[in-house]
Amino acid sequence: MKKVYSLVNTTKAKDQEAVQSICIKQIQFNEQKPKFNKHSADTSRRSPAGSISQSIDSYSSVDSEDESSPRDKPQKTSKGLSDFCIKNIEQAEFGRREIEAAQQEMPALMVLRKRACGEKPLAGAKVVGCTHITAQTAVLIETLSVLGAQCRWAACNIFSTHNAVAAALAERGTSVFAWRGESEEDFWWCIDRCVGAETWQPNMILDDGGDLTHWIYKKHPGLFKKIIGIVEESVTGIYRLYQLSKAGKLCVPAMNVNDSVTKQKFENLYCCKESILDGLKRTTDIMFGGKQVVVCGYGEVGKGCCAALKALSAVVYVTEVDPICAVQACMDGFRVIQLSEVVRQADMVITCTGNKNVVEREHLDRMKSGCIVCNMGHCSTEIDLLSLRTAELRWERVRPKVDHVIWPDGKRIVLLAEGRLLNLSCSTVPLFVLSITATTQAMALIELYSAPEGRYKQDVYLLPKKMDEYVASLHLQTFDAHLTELTGEQAKYLGISKHGPFKPNYYKY
Amino acid sequence: MKKVYSLVNTTKAKDQEAVQSICIKQIQFNEQKPKFNKHSADTSRRSPAGSISQSIDSYSSVDSEDESSPRDKPQKTSKGLSDFCIKNIEQAEFGRREIEAAQQEMPALMVLRKRACGEKPLAGAKVVGCTHITAQTAVLIETLSVLGAQCRWAACNIFSTHNAVAAALAERGTSVFAWRGESEEDFWWCIDRCVGAETWQPNMILDDGGDLTHWIYKKHPGLFKKIIGIVEESVTGIYRLYQLSKAGKLCVPAMNVNDSVTKQKFENLYCCKESILDGLKRTTDIMFGGKQVVVCGYGEVGKGCCAALKALSAVVYVTEVDPICAVQACMDGFRVIQLSEVVRQADMVITCTGNKNVVEREHLDRMKSGCIVCNMGHCSTEIDLLSLRTAELRWERVRPKVDHVIWPDGKRIVLLAEGRLLNLSCSTVPLFVLSITATTQAMALIELYSAPEGRYKQDVYLLPKKMDEYVASLHLQTFDAHLTELTGEQAKYLGISKHGPFKPNYYKY
Amino acid sequence: MKKVYSLVNTTKAKDQEAVQSICIKQIQFNEQKPKFNKHSADTSRRSPAGSISQSIDSYSSVDSEDESSPRDKPQKTSKGLSDFCIKNIEQAEFGRREIEAAQQEMPALMVLRKRACGEKPLAGAKVVGCTHITAQTAVLIETLSVLGAQCRWAACNIFSTHNAVAAALAERGTSVFAWRGESEEDFWWCIDRCVGAETWQPNMILDDGGDLTHWIYKKHPGLFKKIIGIVEESVTGIYRLYQLSKAGKLCVPAMNVNDSVTKQKFENLYCCKESILDGLKRTTDIMFGGKQVVVCGYGEVGKGCCAALKALSAVVYVTEVDPICAVQACMDGFRVIQLSEVVRQADMVITCTGNKNVVEREHLDRMKSGCIVCNMGHCSTEIDLLSLRTAELRWERVRPKVDHVIWPDGKRIVLLAEGRLLNLSCSTVPLFVLSITATTQAMALIELYSAPEGRYKQDVYLLPKKMDEYVASLHLQTFDAHLTELTGEQAKYLGISKHGPFKPNYYKY
Amino acid sequence: MKKVYSLVNTTKAKDQEAVQSICIKQIQFNEQKPKFNKHSADTSRRSPAGSISQSIDSYSSVDSEDESSPRDKPQKTSKGLSDFCIKNIEQAEFGRREIEAAQQEMPALMVLRKRACGEKPLAGAKVVGCTHITAQTAVLIETLSVLGAQCRWAACNIFSTHNAVAAALAERGTSVFAWRGESEEDFWWCIDRCVGAETWQPNMILDDGGDLTHWIYKKHPGLFKKIIGIVEESVTGIYRLYQLSKAGKLCVPAMNVNDSVTKQKFENLYCCKESILDGLKRTTDIMFGGKQVVVCGYGEVGKGCCAALKALSAVVYVTEVDPICAVQACMDGFRVIQLSEVVRQADMVITCTGNKNVVEREHLDRMKSGCIVCNMGHCSTEIDLLSLRTAELRWERVRPKVDHVIWPDGKRIVLLAEGRLLNLSCSTVPLFVLSITATTQAMALIELYSAPEGRYKQDVYLLPKKMDEYVASLHLQTFDAHLTELTGEQAKYLGISKHGPFKPNYYKY
Repeated sequence: MKKVYSLVNTTKAKDQEAVQSICIKQIQFNEQKPKFNKHSADTSRRSPAGSISQSIDSYSSVDSEDESSPRDKPQKTSKGLSDFCIKNIEQAEFGRREIEAAQQEMPALMVLRKRACGEKPLAGAKVVGCTHITAQTAVLIETLSVLGAQCRWAACNIFSTHNAVAAALAERGTSVFAWRGESEEDFWWCIDRCVGAETWQPNMILDDGGDLTHWIYKKHPGLFKKIIGIVEESVTGIYRLYQLSKAGKLCVPAMNVNDSVTKQKFENLYCCKESILDGLKRTTDIMFGGKQVVVCGYGEVGKGCCAALKALSAVVYVTEVDPICAVQACMDGFRVIQLSEVVRQADMVITCTGNKNVVEREHLDRMKSGCIVCNMGHCSTEIDLLSLRTAELRWERVRPKVDHVIWPDGKRIVLLAEGRLLNLSCSTVPLFVLSITATTQAMALIELYSAPEGRYKQDVYLLPKKMDEYVASLHLQTFDAHLTELTGEQAKYLGISKHGPFKPNYYKY
Repeated sequence: MKKVYSLVNTTKAKDQEAVQSICIKQIQFNEQKPKFNKHSADTSRRSPAGSISQSIDSYSSVDSEDESSPRDKPQKTSKGLSDFCIKNIEQAEFGRREIEAAQQEMPALMVLRKRACGEKPLAGAKVVGCTHITAQTAVLIETLSVLGAQCRWAACNIFSTHNAVAAALAERGTSVFAWRGESEEDFWWCIDRCVGAETWQPNMILDDGGDLTHWIYKKHPGLFKKIIGIVEESVTGIYRLYQLSKAGKLCVPAMNVNDSVTKQKFENLYCCKESILDGLKRTTDIMFGGKQVVVCGYGEVGKGCCAALKALSAVVYVTEVDPICAVQACMDGFRVIQLSEVVRQADMVITCTGNKNVVEREHLDRMKSGCIVCNMGHCSTEIDLLSLRTAELRWERVRPKVDHVIWPDGKRIVLLAEGRLLNLSCSTVPLFVLSITATTQAMALIELYSAPEGRYKQDVYLLPKKMDEYVASLHLQTFDAHLTELTGEQAKYLGISKHGPFKPNYYKY
Repeated sequence: MKKVYSLVNTTKAKDQEAVQSICIKQIQFNEQKPKFNKHSADTSRRSPAGSISQSIDSYSSVDSEDESSPRDKPQKTSKGLSDFCIKNIEQAEFGRREIEAAQQEMPALMVLRKRACGEKPLAGAKVVGCTHITAQTAVLIETLSVLGAQCRWAACNIFSTHNAVAAALAERGTSVFAWRGESEEDFWWCIDRCVGAETWQPNMILDDGGDLTHWIYKKHPGLFKKIIGIVEESVTGIYRLYQLSKAGKLCVPAMNVNDSVTKQKFENLYCCKESILDGLKRTTDIMFGGKQVVVCGYGEVGKGCCAALKALSAVVYVTEVDPICAVQACMDGFRVIQLSEVVRQADMVITCTGNKNVVEREHLDRMKSGCIVCNMGHCSTEIDLLSLRTAELRWERVRPKVDHVIWPDGKRIVLLAEGRLLNLSCSTVPLFVLSITATTQAMALIELYSAPEGRYKQDVYLLPKKMDEYVASLHLQTFDAHLTELTGEQAKYLGISKHGPFKPNYYKY
Repeated sequence: MKKVYSLVNTTKAKDQEAVQSICIKQIQFNEQKPKFNKHSADTSRRSPAGSISQSIDSYSSVDSEDESSPRDKPQKTSKGLSDFCIKNIEQAEFGRREIEAAQQEMPALMVLRKRACGEKPLAGAKVVGCTHITAQTAVLIETLSVLGAQCRWAACNIFSTHNAVAAALAERGTSVFAWRGESEEDFWWCIDRCVGAETWQPNMILDDGGDLTHWIYKKHPGLFKKIIGIVEESVTGIYRLYQLSKAGKLCVPAMNVNDSVTKQKFENLYCCKESILDGLKRTTDIMFGGKQVVVCGYGEVGKGCCAALKALSAVVYVTEVDPICAVQACMDGFRVIQLSEVVRQADMVITCTGNKNVVEREHLDRMKSGCIVCNMGHCSTEIDLLSLRTAELRWERVRPKVDHVIWPDGKRIVLLAEGRLLNLSCSTVPLFVLSITATTQAMALIELYSAPEGRYKQDVYLLPKKMDEYVASLHLQTFDAHLTELTGEQAKYLGISKHGPFKPNYYKY
């Protein structure tokens, strides 16, 4: 098995490269986008937020000392179903509790279920999915079922499957093909089992990363005749779809859920605002008060980081290349300088640019001992790590995800997560954000599936603003927030419908 | 003259109606836009920020007891020029000092002048302008001259001309036709003198409100043959241009400078953030700490107001109709409620919606005595004022711009600026914001004038992002801010030019 | 009369000197204390906050063209009373409306009145008072009456009497001897009329500045036999009392209300936090966003200023001499530097030290043109003004309270309020703060008057913490705040009474 | 050994009770004080902040499977010294690296060392110490040596000794008697070995908890003849000293370092401001934006918690019993309510009162599912935990330090750290705070040791303000902060020395 595994590594490495080149070529202006691509790569190493599953995870891993492949071990649910392939159906009850806990944190999907009592907007839908398999996606999958859909599901990452959750899904009748620690071959076999069943043909695709879509293109192109649309949430997957579209090869409509306003604001501004503090505390226990911090880049991520650090009484400096963002930083109360001007006195340097080599060896040489360097931007290109892999510098791993890079004179630079994304490596993605993503996916499926003929062509679409607004509205109850409704007279005055959409597409929230 | 004056009022009232209908029909989603329309209406009643001219203004007004019309009194500059019509050329020295003071606050225009030493981007341009005539616009006009243009200028408002500044402009050779307190007939006569000169034909238009453009359409349509483009900065004027464009009657390219990112952010978010505090303090001397405030609307203006009031330790509630903005308010730490839920306990209610009748009589009836009600949104529709003009309520003017509306039981509601825009009525527009607007206008003129044939058709355009970025960059020195420059390698990685534009058009700052 | 007036000036000047020497000798560590001393000096030039009296004030001043002295013009109230001396009893109705408006802003005193229905804690008290005579003190005086006291009142400042309010007080039966524009001789005559009446001997003193107490010591020392105690609220007056006490000459107990916790926090931290912004806006219209500000001194006033400026997005630097305060500044997120390090780049320099010559000519020489310099600290010693009164510098008054000091090279420093206290000169003292002061004074009178024999010796006392807490509690309703009450068990656990005092005397709030 | 261990537990339990009764009887008004008492109890379960020792700790614990007692195993340093008793001298090198790392974080002590080059302020001092034995205290101990003292040291807690650090201390010559997992008997044996040596008599005591002092009183009272003074840093120890003093039994001067201003501000306000966020994130991963939080108590700890949560955009409510603190909360922008008013809608309830049963079963019954309940105050009395230990409620441990208490209807309350102090249980104490404490201890030793005869009597003293200021000044370099020095003229004006103390004792920072 080791050989297979090394193959996996090779392939994944190549995959990384592909992703890298995406970073390079396409995701130019928006440093946020590439994150969730990375997220999918990182997920296997992290527990989702608020999960009660840490004990279970270790349980699974102990359990996985059972070296036999699930593919060699036919299993049956308590009701005798067997159209699935998972690690161990016995873990179903355990997984069910996980799912139930996650349901409490995803009220928006639960509301969708309730509203579906009368009408089943996905009645007749056959959804094939390929995502991380966690308690949160389980809530999504079972919501799709309640809305009328039949689902078959594979994992989009060989390490991220929560085995007990997969068991619980299977026990309730979802055809899941996934387990933690799949081999590369297993990975594609699972996907194929989802789409290549003789008795079941999907008419909707929910993809995360584009591997499922890619497989169908390659192995089962005929399926597209029946397929109504694709919903894709990762940057990588969307890049692939736009490439297909450009090349004239996209043969069904696709919905880009990554760029919905609600999802973007949460994943970038709000999420990073909290995770920068969390990531730094968990790794370094540093006190923020009075610390001098340089934040490179003042996009959404940079804005979130700066706001949080300032709120906790750090002295924050900003570097920017774009004069408009620079003026914003000034007006928000930050000194805008070049990194070299303050690098000597900085206690922390945080990159949020989407760019490469923003922190160079020359800067690192001039930092004082104890300076913390980390990346909140994208990929792991922002800090010039290569320049630190030289003979005269010694690396010392002092904690998980914390390295000291030691200069010949004893100076120590504290490098976090080896320059990878701090928020994904050393913090957590809040359930609330996962709920917004999952609800957006569900709405996109409903929209594509129930849209009148001809509304969507063979192209990549953004979620209609009205649906984006609906996703937002479903999450307001979490805040006990009460919307005001327009009167008829007011709606007329504004020239819009009482029920939205409330803003034109170009509106900048 | 009284008769004429009453005519003016009638006409202006009609104009107000027109503006009102614009508010109603077009400016639906963006509560900010209509503001500067109002601004132009309000300007006559305010001194520009930081001006040293208050004494001079009163001087002017004393002086204006000289009832003779400038049209009856030919004047000459010290160099013998006479192609202008202003109140009193003797005030030129006084006005020059005003202009020099304003120059200090508008460094961006001064930089443009310096850079123009070698090349004159407006060489050959004949610009006819119609704007408020203040020290700030004087700096703009004289900058255009330094850049190579010839200028003729009229006022866009019968009350807003700073006579001494007009004199200083004339003395230095600009053909100005404007004075404070023009009659309606004077107003159009001045405009006509700018465009109808036999020896001078304009090839560029800089308009604020659209009256100049309208007049040329109506009286001198032949001029458009020579005109290269129109730069317009007011909401009203832009609305008129879009109407022309829709109707296929726009015969030259037009640049909408109102909606440039830099200008928008400053006029709405940054400006309102400061002026809400200032306007409330100047009118009511209220202490903000611990006060309960309802802010209606969480667009850019509402965001600015909420941020400032929270920063000064008020307890802020938000009302919203749009769930996306409502979620933003929640994530920014504000309770989102309906006005009726908290109206009884509110110390202040501030409207920022762009809507009408957001505060109704029913709400006003339930407020406690002393509650302050004011409008930061647009027009004066947001508070249902009509409902307060009833027999049982007594109005008492307690200070300039502050009315107590008194209920039969003695309850007093404190209404500011009669429901008109607080920031324009009771605060000031900072010079920095005026500088951004003026620089944007200059850049738009340069762009239209020097664009290669065919870049702009007979349509309405936004300022190219690169120029927007340039305007921002010119203002960074005010903050002593230092931009970082991309390396060639980085620019290549991002796939953009080292010198911008740095973001795609759809980027949401 | 001019001669008398010049005498007044001389005397007052001496008084200033005395105050100065107090600043020098005693008020060493607490930069806040001297403020209200200054306040008393400045009040005549300002309207109290939120007053509706501006029109009336001008009315009064017009009226005061009636040059006859009130002393020559016996008047009677509608009920025939004549034991008073004021400008014009006809203004009583006008003044009553002012007082009624002020009552709305001083709910704490109104609650005291209500609670006094049954018991009259000041029954039998004969209070002689000497304070500013404004609508707010009128509410205090009439509250004392409702609580059972008889009152006679004089003004503590020759310019600060609100004539209409004095008339309203007289009309309702208070023996007031005060008018706006008293001569020096009038001033002492009025005081003497309060204490030297044959038929009425005071048993309580309420003083502001110590002039009344001084007069009794000098002219009517016999009165002290009957006097139970003195309540004093100014820094100057308290300094005098401590001097008397040290010298063994204080012959009755005195209550220092200036240093009560509640009053101190409001007058320094909370008040200055708001008035720094207000004072700067009203004088300069400056935008705070991105401005670089140096705040000299990080005591309570400095903390308030820094918090407000940071909240409005200025970049704030702090200078400090005390390392403990300096560490606090660091932990609150401010760079602590020496003035000379950043003076070149500062947009504003604000002194809050209680020290002298904190900003020196050397600093002023290095500031950039347009830099704003002002004082929030004490007296007018903080900026070395003398050094600016030299031949090569030109002063130009550009607005009321705004001077440009112009260097030979044209550089302009913007000096506010001639270096006097910005918050008193260019902003307002909120009614809420005045309410806290007045309520504290009332509580101190009650405490001294009703204390059991022997509780207070011939010394200066601070208000007992329990009464300080009571003053605070009376103001909670303004915020609609609800206290939690201790259970018996909890009080026992904490070892305190359920009703307070809740903290030991050394507790640092 | 188990038996011994159970004895230990019993004794410690009694100790807890004693501490409890201290909480009850003495620490009434100041909710902060009892914390570090708890800290000492909790320390054994936590790694100090920023430590690189986590791997070593586990190493130690593996190592400690070596069941033999250090008392049975004589060891020698590389230089042949044997006057110590620790786990394993072989770990010395490992420990030295820990100490060196800690030195970097405690620059203030390193400065003291440097300044001691010339003078040795502790020359001749024989310090016996009893504290936690960690890398940080090692830096303190070795600093004392550099300053001239001879040291003998025991541990103040049976679990908190870092074995490798103890080894490193011994190797360099300090006589340490301590190891992780001492029995009760070992504990006292170690202390006795420090004070009962025949050849060495201490003349200074540095105690943490009072056990060392207690032992000398009980077993070696004769030693007090030579002892110059005691420095004590824990609440418990200080309580004991005050009891001795009251009873007239304190026979040497004692210095209370717990209540120095610098130490208090850092341990309460600044530390809690950061650790409330950290503790909540590490345990629950909750997103703060828009969450409704009730903070019970607005003392220093409550102020810190409220400021941090508001800064991260939570909606914060405050409960208070003290009207002065309540007014402060209002003026800082928080709604002051009773817990029962908002408990239904709260997402979190945090206690910071120093009181008992602040959150009662009645409140818990009304909370919504998912509400987080935790304690930042003192002891574990604030939440009525007893009321949750009933048959109908089920407890489920979902993560370390996180329990779900489950109501019969399925409602889950999330209880953190079983109601013990969140900041100590689930967060870390920053090294910076430990540095301030250690420096304060060193200064107190120097002051007592070098004070002229008669300055200190047999009483408990606070650190002189000047030394408190000196401790603060030593920490300013961390912030790259630059103090301003008074000119002679300014010092004279203020009537103080140029070098402090700068404030009177009653000054409230």
